[in-house]
Amino acid sequence: MNTPFDEQKNLSPVFILVRPQLAENVGTAARAMMNCCIDEMRLVDPDEDHLSDRAIAASSGAETVLHHAKVFKTLDDAIADLQKVYATTGRQRDMIKPVFTGQGMAKDIRSCLEQNMKCGVLFGPERTGLENADLLNADAIVNIPLNPRHCSLNLAQAVLLIGYEIFRLSDDTPDRFLSMPKTEPANKAETEHLFYHLENELDAGGYFSSAEKRPRMIRNLRNIFMRANLTSQDIRTLHGVITNLSGKN
Amino acid sequence: MNTPFDEQKNLSPVFILVRPQLAENVGTAARAMMNCCIDEMRLVDPDEDHLSDRAIAASSGAETVLHHAKVFKTLDDAIADLQKVYATTGRQRDMIKPVFTGQGMAKDIRSCLEQNMKCGVLFGPERTGLENADLLNADAIVNIPLNPRHCSLNLAQAVLLIGYEIFRLSDDTPDRFLSMPKTEPANKAETEHLFYHLENELDAGGYFSSAEKRPRMIRNLRNIFMRANLTSQDIRTLHGVITNLSGKN
Repeated sequence: MNTPFDEQKNLSPVFILVRPQLAENVGTAARAMMNCCIDEMRLVDPDEDHLSDRAIAASSGAETVLHHAKVFKTLDDAIADLQKVYATTGRQRDMIKPVFTGQGMAKDIRSCLEQNMKCGVLFGPERTGLENADLLNADAIVNIPLNPRHCSLNLAQAVLLIGYEIFRLSDDTPDRFLSMPKTEPANKAETEHLFYHLENELDAGGYFSSAEKRPRMIRNLRNIFMRANLTSQDIRTLHGVITNLSGKN
Repeated sequence: MNTPFDEQKNLSPVFILVRPQLAENVGTAARAMMNCCIDEMRLVDPDEDHLSDRAIAASSGAETVLHHAKVFKTLDDAIADLQKVYATTGRQRDMIKPVFTGQGMAKDIRSCLEQNMKCGVLFGPERTGLENADLLNADAIVNIPLNPRHCSLNLAQAVLLIGYEIFRLSDDTPDRFLSMPKTEPANKAETEHLFYHLENELDAGGYFSSAEKRPRMIRNLRNIFMRANLTSQDIRTLHGVITNLSGKN
């Protein structure tokens, strides 16, 4: 079977929607799964057709997830081939089981998947969530920490947060970078030349009130521009600004 | 002014919805904000009334965020008092600005808020996202890493992921813990007593085929139960099971 993201296949769990009520919610869950490169959806006894027009429209382009989804009559059938199953729930349960945060689950899933274990995550029906009977064959519970006074999430949002935690663990985008299309960071010679141009014009205009204060004023000015992470294009722009302000063009 | 979560106030940015189109989406965004303890919403030139019945219903109990929301005619008015502004966008921009991931932004916001800077995050209209003109006064861009082939999020989901990154940075729930209502982990004496009971009955039933193999068989059996992180209640349950299986009750 072809799946939408074969190359990520081995590091993705299966997402299992247990008795979902509305086709739209299955569609928006598919969209959230595809946002996070999770491609394998299973449905246990859904109330509505996951290939209906309403489901496809709600998936906003993620219909490939819906087309590949498999429907099972019972939860036991849906998880029969899985070796580790996590059950998402927003409520405390009267049950002795490991409880993971979203991040904890993501790390645990990753370590299981790296050992070639087949893993799945269960999501309950919209109105009630998973029943205690649904949790019996789950190895662990997942409880996403959120505002304790307002922690209810709709189905697609629960799927999104769980999927996001899994996706972000394998994502290596740097926390911060400078976007600079069509240009690059200025080198020190360009920067020095700009400062020389600026200070020269300021000297000519009598900007520096005293020779004694000049070095400190120059330091402050240079620091302003140093903090701006100037690009080569910025340097050219600022040369133009200085030339214009000093009436030389 | 009273806000819903005064105690978190100082570590929360303002969320600014720029020209939102549908009242429902403002409501679901309010719900996602409240999930993440972000209480201050501002609206720039919204198409619909954020206090309409549709907005309130969509907020699923987060109407306090909607009631406290302030409406502004222009983006400049809405951000006038802010000292650092982040603009969320799913597209590459032809602009030289720092680009943060969700996590990078959360860390940066936290460090700014700890210096008592007032921070805000901009979210664009549902159909188009923020325009380049909206980004002019933003200090940085936020781009949440997601499946590059399917990264579009609806408004509430963008608000949820950004809010979640901010919330999880201040959350100290352990990654994994064992939920054990009404009982506690068994101590070593209880555990040893259980093993003694089990091994005694197995000896009586002739389970251990040879004296030579007995130590290894016992080691394997004990390891099965050791991995189960037994509680005191589990120990009592298992004593009952052994007694029953051995026909002693």
